Amino acid sequence: MNIKKEKLIYEGKAKILYETNYPDKCIIYFKDDATAFDGAKKSTILNKGIINNNVSSWIFSYLSHHGIENHFVEKLSDREMLVQKVSIIPVEVVVRNKATGSIVRRLGLKNGMPFHPPLMEYFYKSDELHDPLVSESHVTYFKWATPEEFDLMQDIALKVNDLLRVVFSEIGLDLIDFKLEFGLTHHCELLLADEFTQDGCRLWDKKTGESMDKDRFRHDLGKVEETYQEVYNRLEKFFKGKNF
Amino acid sequence: MNIKKEKLIYEGKAKILYETNYPDKCIIYFKDDATAFDGAKKSTILNKGIINNNVSSWIFSYLSHHGIENHFVEKLSDREMLVQKVSIIPVEVVVRNKATGSIVRRLGLKNGMPFHPPLMEYFYKSDELHDPLVSESHVTYFKWATPEEFDLMQDIALKVNDLLRVVFSEIGLDLIDFKLEFGLTHHCELLLADEFTQDGCRLWDKKTGESMDKDRFRHDLGKVEETYQEVYNRLEKFFKGKNF
Repeated sequence: MNIKKEKLIYEGKAKILYETNYPDKCIIYFKDDATAFDGAKKSTILNKGIINNNVSSWIFSYLSHHGIENHFVEKLSDREMLVQKVSIIPVEVVVRNKATGSIVRRLGLKNGMPFHPPLMEYFYKSDELHDPLVSESHVTYFKWATPEEFDLMQDIALKVNDLLRVVFSEIGLDLIDFKLEFGLTHHCELLLADEFTQDGCRLWDKKTGESMDKDRFRHDLGKVEETYQEVYNRLEKFFKGKNF
Repeated sequence: MNIKKEKLIYEGKAKILYETNYPDKCIIYFKDDATAFDGAKKSTILNKGIINNNVSSWIFSYLSHHGIENHFVEKLSDREMLVQKVSIIPVEVVVRNKATGSIVRRLGLKNGMPFHPPLMEYFYKSDELHDPLVSESHVTYFKWATPEEFDLMQDIALKVNDLLRVVFSEIGLDLIDFKLEFGLTHHCELLLADEFTQDGCRLWDKKTGESMDKDRFRHDLGKVEETYQEVYNRLEKFFKGKNF
């Protein structure tokens, strides 16, 4: 497979998406750029792109191995990942195991309040509208997804949560919440897409309770690069020698 | 029934709620006070309290007659209504037949875009949190209502919409959207509660397209008192001689 990067399709806050010489494949390039608070805070986190490409590649491979179909094909280079081309469903699916961040302010909850079962929330992907919270019925009412697709997205998100809570627990991290995105191939197959990185999840160290994710950047907690690297190191150790 | 107003239970933006000498009955007193934009704009609308008491009394009677159980018992005076005592479920149910107001800004919709079927939205009643939008699953997850209560609230809201669209259409008004609240009696019977007035719905004149509701106050459209009175007059004519 002689893959060549072609036209830039879309440049986001942390990634660039390229067409390739294969019509059903794209390349994701992971940047070091980081933004927070709807773009109000901008900076770079050294080597984040390399770390996120690795972390996403490991996690997507792991999820594939456990039956969660996703867009990941292979890691091409330090910062590049080959993926199936999908059209993204404009709904962010958020799974919450503990309350933190926006939901604490929005609903007046106690930070760290556990959710049993996990609480799911949905946000309409729109930079212009600042990704507003939506209800389940909005998703199908506005035809962002069919009811069948939406059911599948919810099922997959909960399975991903079950699988990844175990993974992170084994490396001393509590998976607090995360965001998933989904896409449809041109055969209308629904795939987990986008990324799974410290940019889009919250991880609390099980011993110290410290944030081990993008919250360190959001809230100026210091040791931002070190934390991205530390989670990378722990995951590398966990996945090393695992056969998938 | 010798009803006496006793302790003030709660004073809201437009109404005061009193206990009575009957433990299962309350009195609602309708004020002329009007607020908008989460309390940022405050004023009075002359005689609004009298009009809203009448309009709510007519509408609740009409709904009762058509099988929609609600807290209304009788009109006691110009500004006072006797109601069943309920504990209010902290969820505002909004039914939208056309897009206007907050949803237009929130989801980037065209003002006046019709919803077939009606779109329903839910807001958590909390002054402190500014009544945030919530999803269907939040309502039951946080136990604001049981799944059975929530289903019933949705059913009733749609039936109210069907009934009232006809009423308003007959008096030349297009029912654009409205908010309902529900409560539980101490026998855990779910009742439609609160009020149905021009403060909590949007009505557009079918001929001129003009707002005939609190939007005249919100957006300084003029003729605020006259519009409350005009809708009152049309409803009075409609309900006059109707046998319920």
